[in-house]
Amino acid sequence: MLRTHQLGTLNAEHIGETVTLTGWVARRRDHGGVAFLDLRDASGFAQVVVREEEVFHPLRNEFVLQITGTVERRPEGNENPALATGQIEVIAETVVVLNTSAPLPFQIDEHVEVGEEARLRHRYLDLRRPTPNRNIRLRSEANRIARNLLHDDGFVEIETPTLTRSTPEGARDFLVPARLAPGSWYALPQSPQLFKQLLQVGGFEKYYQIARCYRDEDFRADRQPEFTQLDIEASFVEQDDIIALGESLVKELWKLIDVEIPTPIARITYHEAMAKYGSDKPDLRFGLELTDMTEFFKDTGFGVFKAPHVGAVVMPGGATQPRRTLDGWQEFAKQRGAKGLAYVLYKEDGELAGPVAKNLNDVERAGLAEATGAKPGDCIFFAAGSKNEARSLLGAARVEIGHRTGLIKEGDWAFVWVVDAPMFEPAAAAVASGDVAVGTGAWTAVHHAFTSPKPEFMDTFDTDPENALAYAYDIVCNGNEIGGGSIRIHQAELQQRVFKMMGIDEESAQEKFGFLLEGFKYGAPPHGGIALGWDRVLQLLTGSDSIRDVIAFPKTGGGFDPLTSAPAPITSQQRKEAGVDSKPEPKKAESNEAATADAK
Amino acid sequence: MLRTHQLGTLNAEHIGETVTLTGWVARRRDHGGVAFLDLRDASGFAQVVVREEEVFHPLRNEFVLQITGTVERRPEGNENPALATGQIEVIAETVVVLNTSAPLPFQIDEHVEVGEEARLRHRYLDLRRPTPNRNIRLRSEANRIARNLLHDDGFVEIETPTLTRSTPEGARDFLVPARLAPGSWYALPQSPQLFKQLLQVGGFEKYYQIARCYRDEDFRADRQPEFTQLDIEASFVEQDDIIALGESLVKELWKLIDVEIPTPIARITYHEAMAKYGSDKPDLRFGLELTDMTEFFKDTGFGVFKAPHVGAVVMPGGATQPRRTLDGWQEFAKQRGAKGLAYVLYKEDGELAGPVAKNLNDVERAGLAEATGAKPGDCIFFAAGSKNEARSLLGAARVEIGHRTGLIKEGDWAFVWVVDAPMFEPAAAAVASGDVAVGTGAWTAVHHAFTSPKPEFMDTFDTDPENALAYAYDIVCNGNEIGGGSIRIHQAELQQRVFKMMGIDEESAQEKFGFLLEGFKYGAPPHGGIALGWDRVLQLLTGSDSIRDVIAFPKTGGGFDPLTSAPAPITSQQRKEAGVDSKPEPKKAESNEAATADAK
Repeated sequence: MLRTHQLGTLNAEHIGETVTLTGWVARRRDHGGVAFLDLRDASGFAQVVVREEEVFHPLRNEFVLQITGTVERRPEGNENPALATGQIEVIAETVVVLNTSAPLPFQIDEHVEVGEEARLRHRYLDLRRPTPNRNIRLRSEANRIARNLLHDDGFVEIETPTLTRSTPEGARDFLVPARLAPGSWYALPQSPQLFKQLLQVGGFEKYYQIARCYRDEDFRADRQPEFTQLDIEASFVEQDDIIALGESLVKELWKLIDVEIPTPIARITYHEAMAKYGSDKPDLRFGLELTDMTEFFKDTGFGVFKAPHVGAVVMPGGATQPRRTLDGWQEFAKQRGAKGLAYVLYKEDGELAGPVAKNLNDVERAGLAEATGAKPGDCIFFAAGSKNEARSLLGAARVEIGHRTGLIKEGDWAFVWVVDAPMFEPAAAAVASGDVAVGTGAWTAVHHAFTSPKPEFMDTFDTDPENALAYAYDIVCNGNEIGGGSIRIHQAELQQRVFKMMGIDEESAQEKFGFLLEGFKYGAPPHGGIALGWDRVLQLLTGSDSIRDVIAFPKTGGGFDPLTSAPAPITSQQRKEAGVDSKPEPKKAESNEAATADAK
Repeated sequence: MLRTHQLGTLNAEHIGETVTLTGWVARRRDHGGVAFLDLRDASGFAQVVVREEEVFHPLRNEFVLQITGTVERRPEGNENPALATGQIEVIAETVVVLNTSAPLPFQIDEHVEVGEEARLRHRYLDLRRPTPNRNIRLRSEANRIARNLLHDDGFVEIETPTLTRSTPEGARDFLVPARLAPGSWYALPQSPQLFKQLLQVGGFEKYYQIARCYRDEDFRADRQPEFTQLDIEASFVEQDDIIALGESLVKELWKLIDVEIPTPIARITYHEAMAKYGSDKPDLRFGLELTDMTEFFKDTGFGVFKAPHVGAVVMPGGATQPRRTLDGWQEFAKQRGAKGLAYVLYKEDGELAGPVAKNLNDVERAGLAEATGAKPGDCIFFAAGSKNEARSLLGAARVEIGHRTGLIKEGDWAFVWVVDAPMFEPAAAAVASGDVAVGTGAWTAVHHAFTSPKPEFMDTFDTDPENALAYAYDIVCNGNEIGGGSIRIHQAELQQRVFKMMGIDEESAQEKFGFLLEGFKYGAPPHGGIALGWDRVLQLLTGSDSIRDVIAFPKTGGGFDPLTSAPAPITSQQRKEAGVDSKPEPKKAESNEAATADAK
């Protein structure tokens, strides 16, 4: 080693010792022929005293030094109790410059605001700053904690392939040309789903992996083209087993930040979550449940409220919002695709104000406060339309109210399991909400195509898809879905019925999933699992604004890496060598068909 | 859980208990109205007794059952001491068939020979067999052991990107079209090399990762397009530090198979390894050093030996090899690109026989045994030609001799560090041996472009490239390179000089590695590291024939996955959506250029 000690480990016990240290110049102060250097390494800081001006004069911030010197007690009054090494200083005898540093594009300082593009382009400098550094270190610890827990529970870590076959219709798969099979392509997996199920067929019973996954999504806030999930699957389990395991994991992870999560974590059904909170990932750090006002307004004369569904949510103390703020709420609603957000101000004196109030009849005015739970001084927001649209808007308003009123408090944690989600949703709804509808059917899977129906819907899900519930469970933290899983289908016939519901015909099912259906023929055990969105978990644990803050080298929107400038154009030679423009050879295609045919 | 106990945990203490078990029917024996089932789960086996014929009659091998019954002591004389649960049996009260199984394409039995194609196509069945199952479980343990050791040593696990920029001239990179930046492509990394170096620039000091890597190689025996390495990098280290760490890892890993590796592990220089063993990855489980006979034959009249280099290796007891075997050696040499393998049989009676012997003069015949160390009864093999060619052939012959004579013994382990490799080799030689020569220069890096010269060659490596030694070290086990690393260059100017030597001009260096050179400007610390070829390590630990045996879902030669039939043709719509045929937009190209220009 080029050093004898790490800086942060030095203390009064080392006084009198000769030490060799290495690190970066964090700061230099000159005091009449003597320089005091704050030297930094991964372990911390120490003060180095250099007495020769010709030695210290050329030293600049972020120079890398090797110092040999003697540890001494700081002169009385010069101790720095804020620093672990604040009792001592090192009197330099020799100073070797291991490397110089050009002037920095930004300072290595927590308190300097730097644009994200610049930070990411020089990520190696950004990572020297305390918060990014701490985030990445916490991530390493989180990996360790999770793996230890799973190991102690008998889980086996198994790596699954990332050069694999394009799956559900290929939508959103990244593709990779196969040079050795020109015209054929690999796909990067969106998750290890099929492989982890096949590992259950293979008898491993307890599998896990911190897995890299890929999804070529259009830019939505805070997504990455490659992301990480803690991926878990087990055999002979029931929903409660996986939920208990998920709770153990969450409990251990939050201990990393000294937070004790009480377990068992509450459960709420999907339908209840939508009704009470207008969201399938409700933020339960606060109350403020939505009210269904459809019945209340069933005979209303107010045109806006003549709708399939009318709902309301109350903003405590919202009656005094100025006109501009109330206009802002209209904007808020429009950004979410609604026409606006109707409101009634319930003044302290009991008066109902605002443009909606005068459209209400006397009965409605008299009963409104009691029906919505509003108190004098509150604002009542309304949404009317289809049930889903109205709830969704009120759910978003509810969270915004939570932030604005301080009902959501920094440092609060609220976890909840959302269970009993519908098995299917209309394909049109999935597309409208930005998802990809797999298959060509009128219905597509809410969770995914491999999720089992709950036992009571086993016979009816394909005749009454609207009401079938899936054996699925999502874990939500502070309004963020941090994980989800399900009990899977393990029988080929049932899997075929679900594919059929989704409009994936038998030929297509064989082509895309033939190997899974084939596997199910040979004694596939009942199994289920969960995946935790590891980037999101870490974002929450570190209190970061974005998952980019917990990824060592993240990409910006659009999948661009400001550090390496990837992706980049390729040369025509690269294109040729990679076989990008090759058509599949008939022979190859045949052999693929043969393999598929054999799997039937 | 669908069970109360794992099968393998049942023992005499459970006698009298009612248990619920799940597992696969491994075997069924019928004895007059009673069936004995060997039920298997991940933990082991137990014997289940079913007394109702209509219940057991339909049960077939690999059916998945849930059994509820009572644990009883086996009748005297029926105990099976080979089985952990051999004292007990479970008398079934209810038998639930959780899943059926079609007749298997091959039996779940260690002793049935099955072709690899069939095994991999039904890998989920193959993985139920004891050896593949054990291999994958050992891999999980190896991951754990390595991570624990590194964690205890202060290393931080950091995930690096896999959608990144194409590096050394793009050769052998897998490419990925970027849909959101049409015409631009990502590359899958051949290693996290640049990122792990940038993490050192970022001040992490101790990084590791079990990293997925990608290399689009032509088919060579036993390679995979995606593979795993244990990737390590640290700052302020010297060669001895990384070597010591590597030894700790190897020591801990081999303890998994109850082998104690003595440390320190021997070191040999590259030149000594080539001279003594004709290989840069010498198998030191046995001796049999090569002899340099160039001087001995300097005045020979035998045309074949009039060559720049003549070498020899002795095969103990080889003098009695029949003619057919000796012809086989000629074939062996031809497969390695040589004309043949000259030999002299040193008979027990002291006679020198074989076609070469009669071409030797009396002095040569008299001195041969002493010069080569041959004893009566041995065979002496010769190779003549260029030094590299001759040594390489004799090195291969030496290993073959080791196998044929039993000098290489099952269960022996020999580790060695190969140090002081040349920094450069002629580009033509690299290409000839199947590597890619990076850059357009006459010389290319033996290790890689980021390896530092040893300090004593810092000034001369670019004027005398042939003799410059690199600060590199490879660890070799039983003739397999299982890891390699180096002290890296950490100064931009030095890096530029190395690039220049390799014929990578400044513009090209900026385009490909501008972000690394930029990073080196801001206080890059001295650093170095190592990567262990994880698949190869596991192959050795498990005693497998191939790395395919230690990968859950491996690909066959040519990168084909018999299970999923990946890679596969894509549709024209996928092609269009992925932007495969887009030309880069000028605007995008400009913005990339701007980023690069800025980095200059």
